Amino acid sequence: MKIFLDCLPCMLRQVLEGAQMATGDEQLQKTIMDKALKILSSYEAYSNAPELSEVMHNVVKECTGIDDPYGNIKKRDIEEALKLEPIIRSFDKFYASRLMRALKISATGNVMDSAMYKDLDLEAVLKSELEKDFMVCDIDSFEDDIKRAKSILIIGDNAGEVVFDKVLVEYLSRDYEVVYAVRDRPIINDATLEDAYKTGIQDYCRMVSTGCGAPGAVLDSCSSEFLGIFNSSDIVISKGQGNFEALSDSSRRIYFLLKAKCHRIAKSLDVDIDEYVFKKNIF
Amino acid sequence: MKIFLDCLPCMLRQVLEGAQMATGDEQLQKTIMDKALKILSSYEAYSNAPELSEVMHNVVKECTGIDDPYGNIKKRDIEEALKLEPIIRSFDKFYASRLMRALKISATGNVMDSAMYKDLDLEAVLKSELEKDFMVCDIDSFEDDIKRAKSILIIGDNAGEVVFDKVLVEYLSRDYEVVYAVRDRPIINDATLEDAYKTGIQDYCRMVSTGCGAPGAVLDSCSSEFLGIFNSSDIVISKGQGNFEALSDSSRRIYFLLKAKCHRIAKSLDVDIDEYVFKKNIF
Repeated sequence: MKIFLDCLPCMLRQVLEGAQMATGDEQLQKTIMDKALKILSSYEAYSNAPELSEVMHNVVKECTGIDDPYGNIKKRDIEEALKLEPIIRSFDKFYASRLMRALKISATGNVMDSAMYKDLDLEAVLKSELEKDFMVCDIDSFEDDIKRAKSILIIGDNAGEVVFDKVLVEYLSRDYEVVYAVRDRPIINDATLEDAYKTGIQDYCRMVSTGCGAPGAVLDSCSSEFLGIFNSSDIVISKGQGNFEALSDSSRRIYFLLKAKCHRIAKSLDVDIDEYVFKKNIF
Repeated sequence: MKIFLDCLPCMLRQVLEGAQMATGDEQLQKTIMDKALKILSSYEAYSNAPELSEVMHNVVKECTGIDDPYGNIKKRDIEEALKLEPIIRSFDKFYASRLMRALKISATGNVMDSAMYKDLDLEAVLKSELEKDFMVCDIDSFEDDIKRAKSILIIGDNAGEVVFDKVLVEYLSRDYEVVYAVRDRPIINDATLEDAYKTGIQDYCRMVSTGCGAPGAVLDSCSSEFLGIFNSSDIVISKGQGNFEALSDSSRRIYFLLKAKCHRIAKSLDVDIDEYVFKKNIF
């Protein structure tokens, strides 16, 4: 997916957030923003937002020497999500299938990071978010595909979300070989292997790195190991906006599982902002 | 006030908003953003955010040929505010003085534009905002100053807000010569003379342009007529964030009347975000 003009201010804001997390030194924050602005001005050199985002966030790492500016945030997010796990697991809204329930739980994880940033009452937010139905839901096609499937690849997104994905992975692992892929190295609040291991998800699946350090699985930067799994898996589920931006033009069938958190992504998905989506691409 | 790093993404977002209001042509929007990014990258050449903001928004005007991209928004804001006028005028929370009540009404106008953008229930928002007290309130000092005053200058901010300021101006005009100043030319959703006249405020005061087209009265760009009034008025009341950013370093006494709408401005005012302030500068 191309970079929208709306992405530019958003990415600049996010780099400043990263800079402010990494250092309290305002002069250093300024240096980071100056460099980031230069990179942002050449946004047309990048194929998609995650690719550009990685380069901009690398400035934060290079200037501060801090490899994981969101380390504490991710730690907090995972801890909070683990505390919520009993509520997640006791979620008993009626769904046509246990599969649908597990998919909805996983999708709901996609929004918890924003709620945590805003210091909202997490338990209340979680319950209300779980209750919301998918606005677009290609479950019929998915159930068709899964009948013939043996292997499923899930490409993870942010760190706290992994706890929610664990429920889906646990469910799927009863009948399928599940691989769960995460970012290769720290980027914003996305899960790396180190983060994901804290959730216990590895008990139910094989864990891999995408080989890519962008906040979305940009295939050109992924490892051959990951690409092998990506191409050979019977089913691929992509979590979150970053992976959607990186993979929306892929020529293999992918199921995108996410909440539309910004107007542009919502428009691309033909839904309103804040709506949940489980949507296959056209292939 | 210097430009904070936090201002940069915010200003970029606002220019995109202006570009999208002025034209649906995405190629033209892109040209605007490319030029705006170049200007933003030289942010250090500007003394304050309103000055930089004006230059960036001029790109929208130049590229689209549209002199007032927010024209319809301002029209709507003023119409909505005029519809709310009976509610504003019937506001009867107990205050120590009628002056305080009028000041609080005027300050409340400062937030109505954001509420309108978000499509909130305006009447409910208005009532709840009116009820909120000032977090900082230099009313004692103001009442001291006003005893000796004959002339009062109020520097206006956004268009819809003028309807609220009218209540304050009407009250003050009984005992003082009031001048109400607005932007010289269209900039974002700020009031120009043309906008302000639609509210009827001119019945209670002398109207002037600041001579400046920035979204804040940047004194270096103001007309000699305005500077004469600014320097000779016994009391100056500055409305909104833009004027605060432009005038916070001024060496004359100014009373800033606003709601802190962003974290940085809130911090500068020693309050939390979303709090109301009536605060004199140190002089």
